[in-house]
Amino acid sequence: MMAMEEEVVVNRKAVLKHHLPPDRVPKESDMELVATDTVRLRVPSGSTAVLVKNLYLSCDPYMRSRMTKHDEPSYVPDFVPGTPISSHGVGKVLDSGHPDFKVGDYVWGMTGWEEYSLITSTEHLIKINHTDVPLSYYIGILGMPGLTAYAGFYEICSPKKGEYVFISAASGAVGQLVGQFAKLMGCYVVGSAGSDEKVNLLKNMFGFHEAFNYKKEPDLNKALKRCFPEGIDIYFENVGGAMLDAVLANMRLNGRIAVCGMISQYNLGKHEGVHNLLALIAKCICMQGFLVSNYYKCYREFEEKVVQYIKEGKIVYIEDIAEGLENAPSALVGLFAGRNVGKQLIVVARE
Amino acid sequence: MMAMEEEVVVNRKAVLKHHLPPDRVPKESDMELVATDTVRLRVPSGSTAVLVKNLYLSCDPYMRSRMTKHDEPSYVPDFVPGTPISSHGVGKVLDSGHPDFKVGDYVWGMTGWEEYSLITSTEHLIKINHTDVPLSYYIGILGMPGLTAYAGFYEICSPKKGEYVFISAASGAVGQLVGQFAKLMGCYVVGSAGSDEKVNLLKNMFGFHEAFNYKKEPDLNKALKRCFPEGIDIYFENVGGAMLDAVLANMRLNGRIAVCGMISQYNLGKHEGVHNLLALIAKCICMQGFLVSNYYKCYREFEEKVVQYIKEGKIVYIEDIAEGLENAPSALVGLFAGRNVGKQLIVVARE
Repeated sequence: MMAMEEEVVVNRKAVLKHHLPPDRVPKESDMELVATDTVRLRVPSGSTAVLVKNLYLSCDPYMRSRMTKHDEPSYVPDFVPGTPISSHGVGKVLDSGHPDFKVGDYVWGMTGWEEYSLITSTEHLIKINHTDVPLSYYIGILGMPGLTAYAGFYEICSPKKGEYVFISAASGAVGQLVGQFAKLMGCYVVGSAGSDEKVNLLKNMFGFHEAFNYKKEPDLNKALKRCFPEGIDIYFENVGGAMLDAVLANMRLNGRIAVCGMISQYNLGKHEGVHNLLALIAKCICMQGFLVSNYYKCYREFEEKVVQYIKEGKIVYIEDIAEGLENAPSALVGLFAGRNVGKQLIVVARE
Repeated sequence: MMAMEEEVVVNRKAVLKHHLPPDRVPKESDMELVATDTVRLRVPSGSTAVLVKNLYLSCDPYMRSRMTKHDEPSYVPDFVPGTPISSHGVGKVLDSGHPDFKVGDYVWGMTGWEEYSLITSTEHLIKINHTDVPLSYYIGILGMPGLTAYAGFYEICSPKKGEYVFISAASGAVGQLVGQFAKLMGCYVVGSAGSDEKVNLLKNMFGFHEAFNYKKEPDLNKALKRCFPEGIDIYFENVGGAMLDAVLANMRLNGRIAVCGMISQYNLGKHEGVHNLLALIAKCICMQGFLVSNYYKCYREFEEKVVQYIKEGKIVYIEDIAEGLENAPSALVGLFAGRNVGKQLIVVARE
């Protein structure tokens, strides 16, 4: 056993102080760092839990919903004030009562914003097979956002070579991958993002055919008509609201909209109205919402394919790295302000 | 040849006087009856056209769009002021240059609001195989609305026995059939309509398990929760707007929404905003728009099945009949006011 038997150490945590109202953006002061708790670095005897040292933690848009208390249960549980935020993370196994996970293994799955986590729900904990790529990739391109992009694009969008593909929030963890999958498939790919720096990345790093800064476009409808004079076959929806309305007005016959997220709406009490849904009929459009949790069955197939793409240099990937648990709250707040460039993550420890 | 050779007769017509702005309901005074034109009751020599005596004409919600001039071409062409309104109709062939249609045949397809029409676009003209059911059924239950209900329910909704099905505008030409198809499939079926008389029909004539008058419900969300404590698996969408929003809040996991029409929006310049689209993600909902024109290939299969249902008394069907071409404008206006009870049609002649 490599675990330090019976050792009890301080376990710093980033906790949510209180639930947020649905209609405002998260602030750093909604969270706080607690450095007074301790943890015993062993799993309870007889349990099938896994004790991990957290290395990398993820910031993802869906986490906004968890910061608010809901009357009806959502597909992800609300955070509990006073306890650590939870998110996907990459960790190293320090002790394990589970036959699938051994001391020294690297794993990814749902963990806590703390230095050490005792993971008792291990159904979605996944052993990392490839340690010759950066481990942090397993909360991004090789983790939940990567699988989201993969399932959303290949399963929901039914893409065909030569089709016109539009991706919003295109430089984010999911969008950058969808765009590159679409390019590999031989589609024409355009993305939108919220800064010139991101637009530059889309065009010059990720190989999008075209990209625009939505904040600089007085008329999104015109921006889309300029980029898609023939219209859009596939829209990978990450933002909602006005962008969705403009896209609906520019879809082609038999178009597909994969509804992955609507980040523009997450801090609004009442969501913006979408006015152009009548286009669904005339254009025979299919709009399909989906959750990545239904696609874990194809995780290993996805992992092998994308690891191969990475090693062959067919896919590139950009991370925005915050150093230290103490910077986790500002990293999460920055996500909803669009401050991150690429996949936002937090390094708790590098080994 | 039964046609009266060289005979020229007066051909009364109901014409659109002018295009309507998009944001108001049609009025009778937008149309007028013209009784000064004549028609020769023969097809031009050498043409493949068909000359029909119009018997029954249809009023359908999609016709509202055709009354307004559009900058971009729609899936159906705009009406041309000064010429007869066009719609689906049932007619008797008086002369034919087309090998598939003979004098004396009954046919249904797109025709004009006039006593006699020379039909030159015959691709969608269909010979009526069953004359032992009322001929008017071929602009309703056995025509375009029937095929819409059939394709929309069986192809788009992927229904399963025991599922919870909601239909808006449920007493209309399409809705009454969808509800009965759903009942035959073993689903739990609820419909909404705009009067107590229609609600009564839904429950006591069409066999819906439950129905409500949306005009008497102060809170559509509560009405749906009352009818569907377990939520909705399938929504057959005919109205749009606030009803769609309420339905989105009540859908179950993996729900399907077949978007057939949005009649509540057809007389609005700017369509109402729909706010609850975020539900598409959490519930993995598929929202699919469709056009009946893509399903004519299964018309004969549909016709045989539904004729059988009618003869066995498994399906009932209600028509709202306006007598005479002179009453056609008020019948169409009434459709958008919800005045019709059942499928709205116009009798031009009975034989």
